[in-house]
Amino acid sequence: MLFEINSFDGSARCGHINFPGHIVETPAFMPVGTYGSVKAITTDELKNLGYKMILSNTFHLMLRPGIEVIKQHGGLHEFMNWDGPILTDSGGFQVFSLSSMREITEKGVNFKSPLDGDKCFLSPEIAIQVQSELGADITMVFDDCTPYPSTYEETKKSMELSMRWAERSKTAFAQNSGALIGIVQGGMHKDLRHISIEELTKLGFDGYAIGGLSVGEPKAIRKEILSSLMPAIPNNKLCYLMGIGKPEDIVESVRLGVDLFDCVIPTRHARTGFLYTKAGVIKIRNSAYKNDTKPIDETCSCYTCKNYTRAYLHHLDRCGEINACRLQTTHNLHYYQTLMSELRQAIKSERLSQYIDDFYKLRMTESSAMA
Amino acid sequence: MLFEINSFDGSARCGHINFPGHIVETPAFMPVGTYGSVKAITTDELKNLGYKMILSNTFHLMLRPGIEVIKQHGGLHEFMNWDGPILTDSGGFQVFSLSSMREITEKGVNFKSPLDGDKCFLSPEIAIQVQSELGADITMVFDDCTPYPSTYEETKKSMELSMRWAERSKTAFAQNSGALIGIVQGGMHKDLRHISIEELTKLGFDGYAIGGLSVGEPKAIRKEILSSLMPAIPNNKLCYLMGIGKPEDIVESVRLGVDLFDCVIPTRHARTGFLYTKAGVIKIRNSAYKNDTKPIDETCSCYTCKNYTRAYLHHLDRCGEINACRLQTTHNLHYYQTLMSELRQAIKSERLSQYIDDFYKLRMTESSAMA
Repeated sequence: MLFEINSFDGSARCGHINFPGHIVETPAFMPVGTYGSVKAITTDELKNLGYKMILSNTFHLMLRPGIEVIKQHGGLHEFMNWDGPILTDSGGFQVFSLSSMREITEKGVNFKSPLDGDKCFLSPEIAIQVQSELGADITMVFDDCTPYPSTYEETKKSMELSMRWAERSKTAFAQNSGALIGIVQGGMHKDLRHISIEELTKLGFDGYAIGGLSVGEPKAIRKEILSSLMPAIPNNKLCYLMGIGKPEDIVESVRLGVDLFDCVIPTRHARTGFLYTKAGVIKIRNSAYKNDTKPIDETCSCYTCKNYTRAYLHHLDRCGEINACRLQTTHNLHYYQTLMSELRQAIKSERLSQYIDDFYKLRMTESSAMA
Repeated sequence: MLFEINSFDGSARCGHINFPGHIVETPAFMPVGTYGSVKAITTDELKNLGYKMILSNTFHLMLRPGIEVIKQHGGLHEFMNWDGPILTDSGGFQVFSLSSMREITEKGVNFKSPLDGDKCFLSPEIAIQVQSELGADITMVFDDCTPYPSTYEETKKSMELSMRWAERSKTAFAQNSGALIGIVQGGMHKDLRHISIEELTKLGFDGYAIGGLSVGEPKAIRKEILSSLMPAIPNNKLCYLMGIGKPEDIVESVRLGVDLFDCVIPTRHARTGFLYTKAGVIKIRNSAYKNDTKPIDETCSCYTCKNYTRAYLHHLDRCGEINACRLQTTHNLHYYQTLMSELRQAIKSERLSQYIDDFYKLRMTESSAMA
């Protein structure tokens, strides 16, 4: 993996990640294929929407179908019929989410499978090995994620453990091809965040991810942490903001220099009828759309907007039809892809600030009319 | 609608139904789009699979989203983005399925909406009007369906009511364009079935459907009724066997001269992991497929078989992934379409009997090995 930056607009930047046979333009958004399947959409459709790279979950795939099954297929790419780059998370965040069902030691994490209660163990070495067996193009270090709120002492202890695990992850990764990304921790404490990025930079990684955000903290705090942290990330390295987020979060983070995003929001919200438009969110379950013969977004060129009305989608959603999930997922992922593409164009032509102003204006004026 | 027969092989026949701008080759199978959506598959995908005509349900669409919404779109074709012919059932069978929640009178059927308990009424005149408002290319008469088992007297009474309703349906349809199909009733009593077809023939319809089968009767009885009835159906008219069925039912009915079929089986079974192959049914949920890197059917050229393994589908199914439903629906509908196409070819080349022998042989030899 080679990451190159081609243009700047303030702190925001535009570049590309080169993989053998694939180029991903940044800033980029990765749809999430937790179980080796981006929900309700095929890999061919993802390609047609313009997506080049996806994220998949080590933790989930270890439990189902198990790594052996995927190895028998020759790796995750072959298993799920996706030949583009795959970033795999390390499982750290999912283990964190188990809270009471896990025990953290210096060596790693003992936890019970949420599926069958079986005893499982993840460590930096195992997480790296599993990602290698999956055939990850970008591998993540194994980290501990601090809950919100946490005391300074708890956060410090957790961050320091993550840094020792980052070092062990790097050692374990040594012989692997592809890229390894370190994860900045340190909760909502700026100085701990800065110590974390300093430690990671000393170790040296192909890119730096910001973990431990979007864990329940107020948005203002998240923004403050991110603003303080971003200038400390090595400027020539890929910067990945994990698990975030909504269009407005992406826009603001791109402004600060983030290159890479992943989030379940566009796909999950599609399935519950939250549809993104330039004018704001449409809640298609709202009875206001029962007779609405307009498309979701009249300015949108996606398959769903070209062929179906709000009334039809409202109807499918009420009937629990799978096609509601399908058509709405297509729309939301098209919205996110268009947003990323427009952000890249805005950076290249040095008018990001204007673009972001317009982004908010469009939302402000029309979303009230629509609600 | 113009129905023409081009070739015979015994009682089986091959022909086409001509609609303005569309030709449907027969024998044909119609996927079912109950709520104006064939579950888990788009109309473009149906076209790509070779389907030309679909069935949709008057009863369901009346309740959700309501006919007014569909009229606002200009009809069902526009609402669901399908420009091919649509056959709509009359709602008779669905009202029948409500059993205790309905009251049958000479005028029509009073029933409670299974959705909200609202009082509803369907009559021959209303059923025809609603189908016309939906924009049906083929309209079905409104009929009463006899449960199994029923006494001779009950069946006679019900069939005679259906025949009076058929006459009223024809009168109500008079000004409409498109085709109207009469429905033969008479339960499991051969002589009543023959009286029914005689009555319908006297009235004169564009085609004749066989209703009231697949209501719980043993397969042998169904076959006997069908064999006795088929020679009495006007030979130059479209013959439609309603709601049937499994591949072996279709094969046997084509042999007897049936031209048209509909059934939820390929789509419903796809969603519960029953996958059709020439060698028999694969139950993909079976743990035997956990590590199976073969496609569903090595001889199948569908999108699913070309790109995914049994192990992948088994995994998606266990994870409750929507893509399992999607990929499996594609496969089963491809199987049904291939079956119909092969049946037509076999009739044209007068080797249907051999084809059917091979159909069973392939199933017999390999399904035991696979089970």
